[in-house]
Amino acid sequence: MWRNCVRLARGLGCGAFLRPDPKVSRCGVVRGLSPAAPCSPLWNSVTWLSQARELKDYALPNSSWSQGMMDLYSRFLEMCKDGTWKRIPSYSNSVDHLPESLKLTSEKERKETRLFPRNMDTEGVGFEYAMFLNTSEKRMVCLFQPGPYLEGPPGFAHGGSTATIIDSTIGGCAIFVAGKVMTANLSINYRNPIPLGSVVLVDSRVDQVEGRKVFLSCQVRSIDGQTLHAEATALFIRVDSTKSLQQQMSSQ
Amino acid sequence: MWRNCVRLARGLGCGAFLRPDPKVSRCGVVRGLSPAAPCSPLWNSVTWLSQARELKDYALPNSSWSQGMMDLYSRFLEMCKDGTWKRIPSYSNSVDHLPESLKLTSEKERKETRLFPRNMDTEGVGFEYAMFLNTSEKRMVCLFQPGPYLEGPPGFAHGGSTATIIDSTIGGCAIFVAGKVMTANLSINYRNPIPLGSVVLVDSRVDQVEGRKVFLSCQVRSIDGQTLHAEATALFIRVDSTKSLQQQMSSQ
Repeated sequence: MWRNCVRLARGLGCGAFLRPDPKVSRCGVVRGLSPAAPCSPLWNSVTWLSQARELKDYALPNSSWSQGMMDLYSRFLEMCKDGTWKRIPSYSNSVDHLPESLKLTSEKERKETRLFPRNMDTEGVGFEYAMFLNTSEKRMVCLFQPGPYLEGPPGFAHGGSTATIIDSTIGGCAIFVAGKVMTANLSINYRNPIPLGSVVLVDSRVDQVEGRKVFLSCQVRSIDGQTLHAEATALFIRVDSTKSLQQQMSSQ
Repeated sequence: MWRNCVRLARGLGCGAFLRPDPKVSRCGVVRGLSPAAPCSPLWNSVTWLSQARELKDYALPNSSWSQGMMDLYSRFLEMCKDGTWKRIPSYSNSVDHLPESLKLTSEKERKETRLFPRNMDTEGVGFEYAMFLNTSEKRMVCLFQPGPYLEGPPGFAHGGSTATIIDSTIGGCAIFVAGKVMTANLSINYRNPIPLGSVVLVDSRVDQVEGRKVFLSCQVRSIDGQTLHAEATALFIRVDSTKSLQQQMSSQ
């Protein structure tokens, strides 16, 4: 399945810039994403889009964020200063972020869709999260504060909401390493329930790249690192634009 | 993790009635859930609660349901007539369904939470679904129509929303067979993306019960059965009320 990470890339305005690196080796080492200036066109385009349109970046602090969330966010912002980490903006409908010339006809017509984890009008009730990327470590982290509308068992986040934030983070990681991808498998071990209103760190990384296959893993931990809430593995497939989605899924 | 199926059972008002069957064998045969009258107190309580309070059952047709969804719903309703299948009601906040005497103090205070797949105010934009249970086959099916606010890749359901409806269905199935459970593992293979606005059938069943472990599997298919969108396996653990959640997860 196409991933929201495709959407993430589009949200960043990098649909026309970000390309899978042809130099990705089969031994798991991705040489294409050096920490020096891997995404300069991408980050330039973010700046351009932000200036050109009034877009709401949902990955910025709001009044619903707890002190724990703010502290963690500040820590990662600090680590962005030397370029090791990059903050990833996030929008509710990435199609609106693209220049008109890049939009598909169907996307121009489909205005009322919303990215699933950004579909709430009220701050704080759903998914509150911010992602940071470390390209040299092939790693994406997500600061996640589940709101009261994500409930499963009383007082705790629904297993589906945990799956959603893992899928979003791990997918974002995959696209920045391998380009356009789709999820083939997601396997989650649930260890400890996540209390609503708490803050957890979703930490994902690319473990290996074999041809079109991208293997990733992820852990969801409490801020202090003491509680492991969930761990996951995922397999993503890099998209071949000459084939249909069905052809690509059947030839995995 | 405690499941939304715990919540489902509470939503049905059966928190005080539904008990794990002590006669569940270790060879995978569950003797406790005979097709004759497995949940009579449960269904009686549903009736009672429905009469006593003005609850909105979200698993009933609304104007957002497509003809395909209505047709499938009617087919399953028809199969309910001889008692083989049961329609499962669904609410946005199950805590409100419990009599005051059964509510925990924390639940009385926590009024503003919502069950994750039922957290939208507007019909049709999020999860539209209805579940049916077949106790003799240890099977739960879910008719699912993903709305435009569940988007991942353009025009298709987010992988996290697919995981959510699978988790809800398979969890519901687990609780009706094994009682109070928590998810230990959920593994999903994504085969074909689900178009927003389409209708799919989520078909889950209990494959085996070994002590406290409940093994289930699930397929998500198009109405005509021709397209396999996703398939999943899950492991649930029956809850021992004498231990904490953490103790139970660590002793799996």
